[in-house]
Amino acid sequence: MTKKWVYLFEEGNAKMRDLLGGKGAGLAEMTGLGLPVPPGFTCTTEACLEYLGNNNKFPEGLWDQILVAMETVNKKMDRKFADPKNPLLVSVRSGAKFSMPGMMDTILNLGLNDESVNTIAAQADPRFAWDSYRRLVQMFSKVVLDVDGHLFEEIIQEIKAEEGVTADPQVSPKGWQKAVEKFKALVKRESGVEFPQDPWKQLELAVEAVFRSWNGKRAIDYRNATGISHKLGTAVNVQSMVFGNIGNDSGSGVAFTRNPSTGENDFFGEYLFNAQGEDVVSGARTPTEVHKLQVEAPQAWEALMKVSKTLETHYKEMQDMEFTIQNGKLYMLQTRNGKRTAAAAVKIAVDMVAEGLITKEDAVMRIEHFQVDQLLHPRFDDASRKAAVKLTKGLNASPGAAVGEVYFDADTAEKKAKEEGKAVILVRPETNPDDVHGMLAAKGVLTQHGGATSHAAVVARQLGKPCVAGAEEIKIDLRARTMTVKGITIKEGDVISLDGAAGEVYQGALKTVAPDFDEQKELKIILGWADEIRKLMVWANADDPKQAKRARSYGAQGIGLCRTEHMFLGERTEKFQEAILAETDEEFNRVLDEVLLPLQREDFYGIFKEMDGLPVIIRLLDPPLHEFMPSKDELLVEVTRMEAKGETGAEYQAKKKLLAIVQDMSEFNPMLGLRGCRLGITMPGLNKMQVRAIFEAACDAAKEGVKVKPEVMIPLTSHVNELKHIQPLLEEVAEKVMQEKGIRVEYKFGTMIEIPRAALTADQIASVAQFFSFGTNDLTQMTYGISRDDAERKFLLRYADESDLNILPKNPFQTLDEEGVGQLIFMAVEKGRMVRPDLEVGICGEHGGDPESIDLCHRAGLNYVSCSPFRVPIARLAAAHAAIKNR
Amino acid sequence: MTKKWVYLFEEGNAKMRDLLGGKGAGLAEMTGLGLPVPPGFTCTTEACLEYLGNNNKFPEGLWDQILVAMETVNKKMDRKFADPKNPLLVSVRSGAKFSMPGMMDTILNLGLNDESVNTIAAQADPRFAWDSYRRLVQMFSKVVLDVDGHLFEEIIQEIKAEEGVTADPQVSPKGWQKAVEKFKALVKRESGVEFPQDPWKQLELAVEAVFRSWNGKRAIDYRNATGISHKLGTAVNVQSMVFGNIGNDSGSGVAFTRNPSTGENDFFGEYLFNAQGEDVVSGARTPTEVHKLQVEAPQAWEALMKVSKTLETHYKEMQDMEFTIQNGKLYMLQTRNGKRTAAAAVKIAVDMVAEGLITKEDAVMRIEHFQVDQLLHPRFDDASRKAAVKLTKGLNASPGAAVGEVYFDADTAEKKAKEEGKAVILVRPETNPDDVHGMLAAKGVLTQHGGATSHAAVVARQLGKPCVAGAEEIKIDLRARTMTVKGITIKEGDVISLDGAAGEVYQGALKTVAPDFDEQKELKIILGWADEIRKLMVWANADDPKQAKRARSYGAQGIGLCRTEHMFLGERTEKFQEAILAETDEEFNRVLDEVLLPLQREDFYGIFKEMDGLPVIIRLLDPPLHEFMPSKDELLVEVTRMEAKGETGAEYQAKKKLLAIVQDMSEFNPMLGLRGCRLGITMPGLNKMQVRAIFEAACDAAKEGVKVKPEVMIPLTSHVNELKHIQPLLEEVAEKVMQEKGIRVEYKFGTMIEIPRAALTADQIASVAQFFSFGTNDLTQMTYGISRDDAERKFLLRYADESDLNILPKNPFQTLDEEGVGQLIFMAVEKGRMVRPDLEVGICGEHGGDPESIDLCHRAGLNYVSCSPFRVPIARLAAAHAAIKNR
Repeated sequence: MTKKWVYLFEEGNAKMRDLLGGKGAGLAEMTGLGLPVPPGFTCTTEACLEYLGNNNKFPEGLWDQILVAMETVNKKMDRKFADPKNPLLVSVRSGAKFSMPGMMDTILNLGLNDESVNTIAAQADPRFAWDSYRRLVQMFSKVVLDVDGHLFEEIIQEIKAEEGVTADPQVSPKGWQKAVEKFKALVKRESGVEFPQDPWKQLELAVEAVFRSWNGKRAIDYRNATGISHKLGTAVNVQSMVFGNIGNDSGSGVAFTRNPSTGENDFFGEYLFNAQGEDVVSGARTPTEVHKLQVEAPQAWEALMKVSKTLETHYKEMQDMEFTIQNGKLYMLQTRNGKRTAAAAVKIAVDMVAEGLITKEDAVMRIEHFQVDQLLHPRFDDASRKAAVKLTKGLNASPGAAVGEVYFDADTAEKKAKEEGKAVILVRPETNPDDVHGMLAAKGVLTQHGGATSHAAVVARQLGKPCVAGAEEIKIDLRARTMTVKGITIKEGDVISLDGAAGEVYQGALKTVAPDFDEQKELKIILGWADEIRKLMVWANADDPKQAKRARSYGAQGIGLCRTEHMFLGERTEKFQEAILAETDEEFNRVLDEVLLPLQREDFYGIFKEMDGLPVIIRLLDPPLHEFMPSKDELLVEVTRMEAKGETGAEYQAKKKLLAIVQDMSEFNPMLGLRGCRLGITMPGLNKMQVRAIFEAACDAAKEGVKVKPEVMIPLTSHVNELKHIQPLLEEVAEKVMQEKGIRVEYKFGTMIEIPRAALTADQIASVAQFFSFGTNDLTQMTYGISRDDAERKFLLRYADESDLNILPKNPFQTLDEEGVGQLIFMAVEKGRMVRPDLEVGICGEHGGDPESIDLCHRAGLNYVSCSPFRVPIARLAAAHAAIKNR
Repeated sequence: MTKKWVYLFEEGNAKMRDLLGGKGAGLAEMTGLGLPVPPGFTCTTEACLEYLGNNNKFPEGLWDQILVAMETVNKKMDRKFADPKNPLLVSVRSGAKFSMPGMMDTILNLGLNDESVNTIAAQADPRFAWDSYRRLVQMFSKVVLDVDGHLFEEIIQEIKAEEGVTADPQVSPKGWQKAVEKFKALVKRESGVEFPQDPWKQLELAVEAVFRSWNGKRAIDYRNATGISHKLGTAVNVQSMVFGNIGNDSGSGVAFTRNPSTGENDFFGEYLFNAQGEDVVSGARTPTEVHKLQVEAPQAWEALMKVSKTLETHYKEMQDMEFTIQNGKLYMLQTRNGKRTAAAAVKIAVDMVAEGLITKEDAVMRIEHFQVDQLLHPRFDDASRKAAVKLTKGLNASPGAAVGEVYFDADTAEKKAKEEGKAVILVRPETNPDDVHGMLAAKGVLTQHGGATSHAAVVARQLGKPCVAGAEEIKIDLRARTMTVKGITIKEGDVISLDGAAGEVYQGALKTVAPDFDEQKELKIILGWADEIRKLMVWANADDPKQAKRARSYGAQGIGLCRTEHMFLGERTEKFQEAILAETDEEFNRVLDEVLLPLQREDFYGIFKEMDGLPVIIRLLDPPLHEFMPSKDELLVEVTRMEAKGETGAEYQAKKKLLAIVQDMSEFNPMLGLRGCRLGITMPGLNKMQVRAIFEAACDAAKEGVKVKPEVMIPLTSHVNELKHIQPLLEEVAEKVMQEKGIRVEYKFGTMIEIPRAALTADQIASVAQFFSFGTNDLTQMTYGISRDDAERKFLLRYADESDLNILPKNPFQTLDEEGVGQLIFMAVEKGRMVRPDLEVGICGEHGGDPESIDLCHRAGLNYVSCSPFRVPIARLAAAHAAIKNR
């Protein structure tokens, strides 16, 4: 028995997305709900994979099953596919598991040919018949026979010119008939084959074309960019046609049950009278607001409202629907969970909890981490906005602030972004699937035409890119590579700024500022629910009081990493160099105590005050000292130049001496060299000064009533004896300071676990350290034997690129390598807690803000993750997701 | 009840070395065997530790137990300690668990004072009485009161001059009496206290002095140098005196049951008539050969022969004995396992197996790895020897060849060796414990005076340093810092060569050559027995046919690491640079195929022939390519200079371009960068060429009837996908070559396990790799986070130095870190074999030749260790030791 490759809509349901694709499952579910869905059937994703895997041959039984299914549809529609006298017309649409807007191909009106077009013309209306036929030839030829779409547009323009009209609906039946003739000639010329007159041949070729489109370049690029697996395949939906282009009581629309941009609970959509669905999406004609139907087609509107309510209640999710009204009657062509902006996602989730549709937990699970990220993206600074020249205002199609150089085609935009690393704004009359690679590469998108559901708007929202659509005021000259608005001409390469939330376009680069977290009321509600659910605490990495303040405002419950080396940079570097160059220990310690101690103390004091009541982990100096010295190569050039000039004076001598010192300090592999606690052990004065600064600051703050919880972190431990050596020396300093200040503060001493050996011997290390913090950047470098400074440039990006070497599933510096580094983390937590059951364990590498890595940290039983302040909200959400997923 | 701090000799035995020290246990054992041992007792090492740990106070009960024990001795000797009328005299000697020759202090004739000396003079002989007394004052004052020993020697010289004699025994009773008076005055002047007349006070102070000497600088230095623990403490032996200085039928001797230099089964030793034991050891008087006793004192000789036989049969080990003959009667003062040269150790072990005294396994266990090392130390080249000026011939006190600069005092010798890294020969009239630090630092030792059992000879043998002793022909002028022989004057800093085995001294530096392994018959027997015992195979690291040949001659059972990068060095570097600089892939591959392929093939062919029948693991190119390029810094200087001169020509342009390339290739942490299989994966042409060379060579050799077993090793794997990517490409090349050549060879593909992640995911890796080879150099670097290129210089040596930071028990690059790196090794073996039960696992890092690391490899279940050819014999022995120890 052959496999079941074909499902009638009534045979499927919403749970069969893997097999039927998103569109097919939605059509099946709606059919099951008794909603007005034109009958049809779905060829499964398995059929697609079988076809692609078998040298592009239909799997056995597929065609027979299509014939049988078509017979059922014929009966329901009381028509007959391929019968010239009573023809059934069908659409053929792709539908993968995950929505890939515009990526896959669609053909409408399939079944028409030179004979049946006359039947339709006679039965219905000649204009409609010939319009439908020319659409078929146009779409079919483009999709199946790969004829350049612009050539068809040129013919249409010619005919419109001949007839003296501008809009498609104004073209006469004769005009469309003429178009068909010209189209057919064009197809013959361009592809070498005739447009097939046999409807079954049309169907067969169309289904094959959809299957093949899964491996088209556009589809692969899109999946690479969005992380969708290449192994899913697409389903093909064959559905009997209903016609929005059959007169003025007909039309096609796209609508959302709620506003996908703001999340308001307000029906939202667009409608084109006397048009097929593709006209809405293409953006070629600007549609009307969907509420117009309330007046223009009240019955259909009422039906639409009912369907909308039914679907949202049924799916408990905002729906994105496509519908057609044929002679006043509503037909549903698609429903799916609607794409939305991050703001809308958050508002809808919160509202639906209030409406009793979903639980708080559902709401938390519905928000994805990248949406939080988008909400916290920078915005334009108000002052900067006021000072700038506003070029125009279009539709606020996708929110966010983008600054970049203008490019007018996707290829150039991609090239400038990828090869030259430029920030790019893609500006197009309108976008279509061929532009997606440029949109992916761009910081933002600006279109002259198209509405809120146009291709540009939908894709930009999905990609989280700022987009201003339908900015009709701008005039684009693609040949000259310029755009003009209000008399100002913007050339290719000029910089503009887009405010996607306001729909505004500015000349030049506006300054951006961090968003005001307090204004994100719904987000704060969601994160509050996340906080109730999660087991992991979320701490932040902050090196100064300002960062600490921001971290706390974002919900950080502690500082997991305060890097003291940043306190030696900038204007302080010179002082630190003075210490490093000191010729005696006395001089070294004098500079430390007199100059650096007060500076550090002040920093720490500020941080303790901001983090009143919360723990603050301060890491002792970590990087090798030569990082604070002048560049060896520059000194070498300088000294060589001086020598070439024959200089021998004091300046030359000083430079030469400095060069010798820097050369002596340089290391072949500094990452594995004299740094971290190795510095502390070989030059104990440095760490002692730091601990003194920490405890002086802590005591000072404590005296003012601040509840301080300093935790001193010793970096780069590889052997427990290092801790046994240095920790007591430092604890002694801490005790001494507290005695001097006459006040005691709660404190801990602990260590980074960032060397594989430390993880392997965590039981020994925990006998001394009171806390562990995984430094997963270094731990990854050493466990993987990969230097991050070099490897990404040299080979790692190629390793992790699915379309290149495809050796690593992920870049291990972005997402924790569970098999390798993760194994060490699990081992270290277990061993450490065996010796010290109350061991505090966290992570302070960059992985601390990565949701997938946070999931691992949850499973490993960490107490907290620590990440950059901006990632704190994401981490709060991700920690809740982890708690729910791993129950 | 207080602890037992004191044991009479009859209360102890040989097993109580920890408590009684080596000497004390030996005296007890001999007492138990009924041998003629003067009665006495031992204060335990525990008493010493208690004393030192308690602010240098005797532990409670010690003194009382000494009093009780002395009473027993009094009775046995029919004398009474501290009784002026019938005084018992005793010796006080140190005796730690491990022999530390000359390190600890000895006092003889204790119990004498101004009163009892007259009793002895009356009872025995005035010369003897006063000689004994002056010895007591001299030794006591030096050891207990810290008076400079030379001052006593000066007084003796004066008296000898006055009396017109040259040798000690010729000094008259009056002379010695005068010496005592002068000594006492000297002591008062130098130390501020009187020489104590109370024998009990003498005893108390003497015991304390021995205890304290455990922590003397000499003792600590010696223990640091030889790896003896500082926690053992020393015992104190108090023994009733017998006198070798009581007349010409008396004397003292030192003897070995077999020859400690050659191992011949021939009684060996030296004897001084009318002398105490210290006179023999000090080397101040040249003793006679012990066989003279056969004629001069036949009864004592017969007794000595009997004792010797008894002891060797009892201990089943060559014994080193001290004895005294008092008026013709033999007394035994010490027995212990005799120190011996490596050659003697091997011969004795083999002989004792033949004699049925010990088993083969005992014999194997008796040879220590450093002895094998010594036997394989370089020797002087015969031609070089003939061409050189032979300065003199002395005693062949300790074998081996040493070349170095002459220094005449231990401090300078140590300084030149340690601070300036010079090879040094220490030349002294004779040595004493104060010279040991100089002997440790020197390559060899030359003395003017002293015999085969003199301090210099004994210590040099123990340290394995070449030594020529008693080269009386040379005249040393310590003030002028020269030595003169045969009219030639050698100044400080001049180079000489010592042949310790021949006892010869040459002017200038002789060339050394590797020893002829085939001549080491006994060693080969021992290693043959080791081969029967061991479970680990021993392979060798060899990069060319010559090394492979040597490895095989030393017993290697395969090549565990053939590094191909060495094949790109030397004159071939230029060719390889040409490939690296190729601008197109075609050019790159052309250079590889036309130039490098034939070179590599030739190397491999030679190795396969040498290793006929044995496996050869060839590692594909490992180091980063920039290692084959000119130095970046040098280019930078060159280009800067050219710029300073205003050069713009072609040469400048070429240099500048090269600099840019080298700068682009350089990495921050090259060890973790683009190398190993990362190179192979990103530039597959390189590895393909290498595999082609390997298989062309293998097939060519196989056609000639050579049994080739090539194993291709892919370096630096971190993720199984790397192997999945590259291995099939390379296997394809191998198959293709075999097809071309029309012959098949047995082969394997496998990988280095040198990155922690590879060990952690060894199960996955073993699904592709057919063998593992632990690259423990890199594995240690990454597991420990330590760059070997930098760290030893920067901090690691201080970390591993017990007298400095003392953080690491060992340098992990010398001995495998069992807790960290070892954990990964155990894990990887287990995981790998779980997936591939017949997985071949070995080690090819430098640890492969380290005995302690070999023990770990045995326990981890490795198939083989691979080390440098010269270490193969050591590894064979160490593998047998591991097999025995871990049964």
